[in-house]
Amino acid sequence: MNHKRGFASDNNSGIHNKIIEAIQKANEGHCIAYGDDQFTETAVDRFKEHFGDDIDVYFLFTGTASNVLGLKALTRSFHSIICTEVSHLNVDECGAPENFLGTKLVIISSKDGKLRRSQIEPLLDVFGNEHRAQPKAISITQPTEMGTVYSIEEIKDLARLAHKNGMWFHMDGARIANAAASLGTDLKTITRDAGVDVLSLGGTKNGMMVGEAVVFFDKKISKDFKYIRKQGMQLGSKMRYLSAQFEAYLSDNLWLNNAKHANSMAKLLASELEKIAGITITQKVEANGVFAIIPQEHVKAIQKEYFFYVWIKEGPVVRLMTSWDTTEDDVIGFIKTLKKIMKN
Amino acid sequence: MNHKRGFASDNNSGIHNKIIEAIQKANEGHCIAYGDDQFTETAVDRFKEHFGDDIDVYFLFTGTASNVLGLKALTRSFHSIICTEVSHLNVDECGAPENFLGTKLVIISSKDGKLRRSQIEPLLDVFGNEHRAQPKAISITQPTEMGTVYSIEEIKDLARLAHKNGMWFHMDGARIANAAASLGTDLKTITRDAGVDVLSLGGTKNGMMVGEAVVFFDKKISKDFKYIRKQGMQLGSKMRYLSAQFEAYLSDNLWLNNAKHANSMAKLLASELEKIAGITITQKVEANGVFAIIPQEHVKAIQKEYFFYVWIKEGPVVRLMTSWDTTEDDVIGFIKTLKKIMKN
Amino acid sequence: MNHKRGFASDNNSGIHNKIIEAIQKANEGHCIAYGDDQFTETAVDRFKEHFGDDIDVYFLFTGTASNVLGLKALTRSFHSIICTEVSHLNVDECGAPENFLGTKLVIISSKDGKLRRSQIEPLLDVFGNEHRAQPKAISITQPTEMGTVYSIEEIKDLARLAHKNGMWFHMDGARIANAAASLGTDLKTITRDAGVDVLSLGGTKNGMMVGEAVVFFDKKISKDFKYIRKQGMQLGSKMRYLSAQFEAYLSDNLWLNNAKHANSMAKLLASELEKIAGITITQKVEANGVFAIIPQEHVKAIQKEYFFYVWIKEGPVVRLMTSWDTTEDDVIGFIKTLKKIMKN
Amino acid sequence: MNHKRGFASDNNSGIHNKIIEAIQKANEGHCIAYGDDQFTETAVDRFKEHFGDDIDVYFLFTGTASNVLGLKALTRSFHSIICTEVSHLNVDECGAPENFLGTKLVIISSKDGKLRRSQIEPLLDVFGNEHRAQPKAISITQPTEMGTVYSIEEIKDLARLAHKNGMWFHMDGARIANAAASLGTDLKTITRDAGVDVLSLGGTKNGMMVGEAVVFFDKKISKDFKYIRKQGMQLGSKMRYLSAQFEAYLSDNLWLNNAKHANSMAKLLASELEKIAGITITQKVEANGVFAIIPQEHVKAIQKEYFFYVWIKEGPVVRLMTSWDTTEDDVIGFIKTLKKIMKN
Repeated sequence: MNHKRGFASDNNSGIHNKIIEAIQKANEGHCIAYGDDQFTETAVDRFKEHFGDDIDVYFLFTGTASNVLGLKALTRSFHSIICTEVSHLNVDECGAPENFLGTKLVIISSKDGKLRRSQIEPLLDVFGNEHRAQPKAISITQPTEMGTVYSIEEIKDLARLAHKNGMWFHMDGARIANAAASLGTDLKTITRDAGVDVLSLGGTKNGMMVGEAVVFFDKKISKDFKYIRKQGMQLGSKMRYLSAQFEAYLSDNLWLNNAKHANSMAKLLASELEKIAGITITQKVEANGVFAIIPQEHVKAIQKEYFFYVWIKEGPVVRLMTSWDTTEDDVIGFIKTLKKIMKN
Repeated sequence: MNHKRGFASDNNSGIHNKIIEAIQKANEGHCIAYGDDQFTETAVDRFKEHFGDDIDVYFLFTGTASNVLGLKALTRSFHSIICTEVSHLNVDECGAPENFLGTKLVIISSKDGKLRRSQIEPLLDVFGNEHRAQPKAISITQPTEMGTVYSIEEIKDLARLAHKNGMWFHMDGARIANAAASLGTDLKTITRDAGVDVLSLGGTKNGMMVGEAVVFFDKKISKDFKYIRKQGMQLGSKMRYLSAQFEAYLSDNLWLNNAKHANSMAKLLASELEKIAGITITQKVEANGVFAIIPQEHVKAIQKEYFFYVWIKEGPVVRLMTSWDTTEDDVIGFIKTLKKIMKN
Repeated sequence: MNHKRGFASDNNSGIHNKIIEAIQKANEGHCIAYGDDQFTETAVDRFKEHFGDDIDVYFLFTGTASNVLGLKALTRSFHSIICTEVSHLNVDECGAPENFLGTKLVIISSKDGKLRRSQIEPLLDVFGNEHRAQPKAISITQPTEMGTVYSIEEIKDLARLAHKNGMWFHMDGARIANAAASLGTDLKTITRDAGVDVLSLGGTKNGMMVGEAVVFFDKKISKDFKYIRKQGMQLGSKMRYLSAQFEAYLSDNLWLNNAKHANSMAKLLASELEKIAGITITQKVEANGVFAIIPQEHVKAIQKEYFFYVWIKEGPVVRLMTSWDTTEDDVIGFIKTLKKIMKN
Repeated sequence: MNHKRGFASDNNSGIHNKIIEAIQKANEGHCIAYGDDQFTETAVDRFKEHFGDDIDVYFLFTGTASNVLGLKALTRSFHSIICTEVSHLNVDECGAPENFLGTKLVIISSKDGKLRRSQIEPLLDVFGNEHRAQPKAISITQPTEMGTVYSIEEIKDLARLAHKNGMWFHMDGARIANAAASLGTDLKTITRDAGVDVLSLGGTKNGMMVGEAVVFFDKKISKDFKYIRKQGMQLGSKMRYLSAQFEAYLSDNLWLNNAKHANSMAKLLASELEKIAGITITQKVEANGVFAIIPQEHVKAIQKEYFFYVWIKEGPVVRLMTSWDTTEDDVIGFIKTLKKIMKN
């Protein structure tokens, strides 16, 4: 069987029962396609409960699309977007930002996945120089791709820097639920209230079957987004089934409970790993990712039992992701296997 | 209730029970994301049973993406793509082909949705002229957007024209099942065997929740398609749920039975409409679409009971689509309503 | 010798002496590159004398770039641009508009090269429909590619239509001098005063060595154009030599005298052609182009003596362009040759 | 007068007399436009004398276009291009590569402007990973943007690395003449013979009015380049005037003598600067650029007399460019001014 459980990615997890039920419940009769239906209306209402009435929200299929199309609403081709070298935008989208936006990404090195004001400021002296792409957006990932979480104050500081310089502030929130769970806040506090202009809100990794949302906190930005989504090949025809998932996801704290559980499994995993001699945790464990150095000679053997990815060759540093459906047994089994292989 | 049944679009239909079941069955444990899983392997095998072993197939989320990305494998920006003025590619993709491919669409007028050799030949004297975009693909829709179906010989003739002139032959098969059902053939006969190089095969309109496939009949064309899909923002993470749908869709003739049913409902609808004085069927009813002139003064009243779209203002010509879940009661109810409103 | 004179294109003509002199005069010492020099300042002043002080003007290298980049300031990728099927934009730019703008061109058929209000209005019911590219600019060519000239009232009518519908009005004025000469007006009357928002003003075809200008009549439109020009690969380093040409071109009526001469040679050519049995002038001769049917059997023989292009196969209709350096001897010689070959 | 001489850029220099004469000589009668003329034929022959008969060469207007369009022949949008962080491609093209190619630039840090094998190799483990843009070209600048010159062996080493990994090797030779003059070689030795596949060969900075060439050393690469140039908005209509310049430039060692002179002026300048206490030369002076730290407090005063650019704020490091028309008097005057201001 290929259904092997592990820590490779939260994308390897399944669909939460409440999401499946929501899809089934929506499967009755006919519905106007492309979003002009009651399921979408209800799902949008749910977003408004979380983020305020005057938002604009659109459902898409992939996280890459959410980031790229959200940024398309903010930029023109002669602009540039500031992000980290480890950002999904830079590393894991096969050049989609450059291709679809036609813009330059300005890359800042980062060990822990965070952008810092002091790194951005020196890049801003190009404003007005026609030879240079013009910075127009700062994009951060929350939690970062390295499993760390920006504090509210860190977010606000970057938002202020962006806005002071006529730039937009974008957040890749593919795992935003895990950040909120980590910080003990609601979703609005660490996004809209902290100065975010456009948010990619992910559902797929946290219990949905498929579904990502782009949330705009200023309707002036989104006034043409319906065309951007359609031209971006992301307008779903049977929209009700995306919407029904989101409605369930944002109700009864499903998003939060799933994220809390994943985060707690990561904490457990990290605390058990720390007890093993020869293993070093390399990043703060603040969301649902654990980055750890595992002795090179044992990597292959462990991967055979529990698959995961080597994230950085030097070390090697491996990435271990927990998810909403990770069990304590998964963690304990993994730790046992590790100990056995490492003869620890 | 907004669940009102009607003939607006086969996109308004629901999900077939076997598809829902397939999603549920796939929802067990963990699975490697992005397609390296057994459900995807099985679904690809199903495609091979239909089209031959040496194909390459990729799953995507939208029909627009299937067309655009499939054509991206065939063209560079200085090429052009020949299609009809009523094609989905030209009319209903908000400029996605131009934007994502950077290519010119060369538009040919067509009343019945079909391209004809005699219209294409005069456009081919631009080869080698650097001032002109270079024709590189002919794209047809089968069945056409006007509900007509190309005969096998018509397809072969266009394929020969394309290949003779160094062009590729692309088919938008968003409703290809309805064409096969109409012609009484299997899927391969009217695609690969007729000279098609790349096929968009739609699932969503015919009983799936979401899922479109791009099928390549020459692996040389598709060798870089995995990058095109990812950069095209269409690589699904929890791929197993797309794949499981396709596996069910292509098994036990589900695709065919659904299409046959939709087609037969269209025939029934057309035959009933023809009996009503003042209504004229304007296109051959060969698949699941009926185009008919309905007296202008009754359109609004009828739309209130059964929603549909006015396709061409002059007439007006309305489009009535049946789907896999259209019932005889739907047709009879609609006809009754029509007669009542038209006092026929 | 390959320097054979003829009527193939005004692009085949040479450089006017005053332009060469201007280049030489500018060739002294050092000058800041990229336009921050006195020659550019003076040339811009010359444009302001013609078009008003509150314009913004940029110099580029090719007519294709002038059209495409000017339109880039007006549109985003989900927009569309309305133009004729015979427009340079559609026919002679190898798909550059689609590629660089990512927008759809909406093509209107036209025998005489002119757009008409009645053809545009039916296309405007797509506003707000997310499946359709949104019309954002009307682009006309003045004089048209068929040698005809829009009257001032015709221009104003299209401008009103554009502006009433929230669209911009763009003019490809690759030969705008010939139109002004034809109408007996200054340059401003038939552009800015008639409602044009952005003008491509050509210099190359009318006596310059190389140089096209994009003129903006509303600085809000052009505020980012310096980045668009640079990203569009059209920012010349030794700008002074472009600017010096424009300064000479727009001084002492050089632009006008050259255009008047070319137009008068076209009139002479047409009047002589009309006298020849078997030749039919197919378009009004209002600028420097003559379109005429010449018997198919004589085309090759005539082309050997005086090269020209067959513009439309049916006829065949040939295009004969005069230029600022066409002489009466050129016309007389051509007519003689024609008569000899046609035994007329 | 604004004609102030200085060391800001070799783009500030004028046109060599032989180039002006060539333009004048070409200005006779009519010539077929767009390159089908004898001047272009002769100019292409001159390139063949330098680079071999089986090359393909195209003339363009700007260096940015030469780089971007040359690379377009080599890449598709899902590819990436490896270059330094200080490369013209990355810094000075306002995002044109990203916009026109749709590709990602993979940036490597470099103090002296050179790429090194050891920096590239670790980036090549992404081949086959669909989430990552696929490296397809290495692009170097010769001489580099920091005034240094790659040795023949350094070029060959990078070319081997590229070819071994299925990548193309591109050279931005905006100042390639200065590199050849520096190394004492002909043009072919350090380009084609060293493994370069596509070369941007600059003329503008070294005595021409305007003109850059893209030289292909493998005709398979360039088979569609005429469409790329046209779609890239770089096809000049009165091509003879570009071609005539190149013909003169590549004859009688004009290219070499101009470059030798510029290089020798840079050597002189550097040797004089080194004598001044408080000034540090920061890069090897191998071509026509001198990079030096000048005390911050004197920069503004010196710039008033002889304009130049501060290249790196820390230092500050200023860039001083010599050109074909720099005189010994220019150098001596500058040094005197420096000494006076610095009270040295």
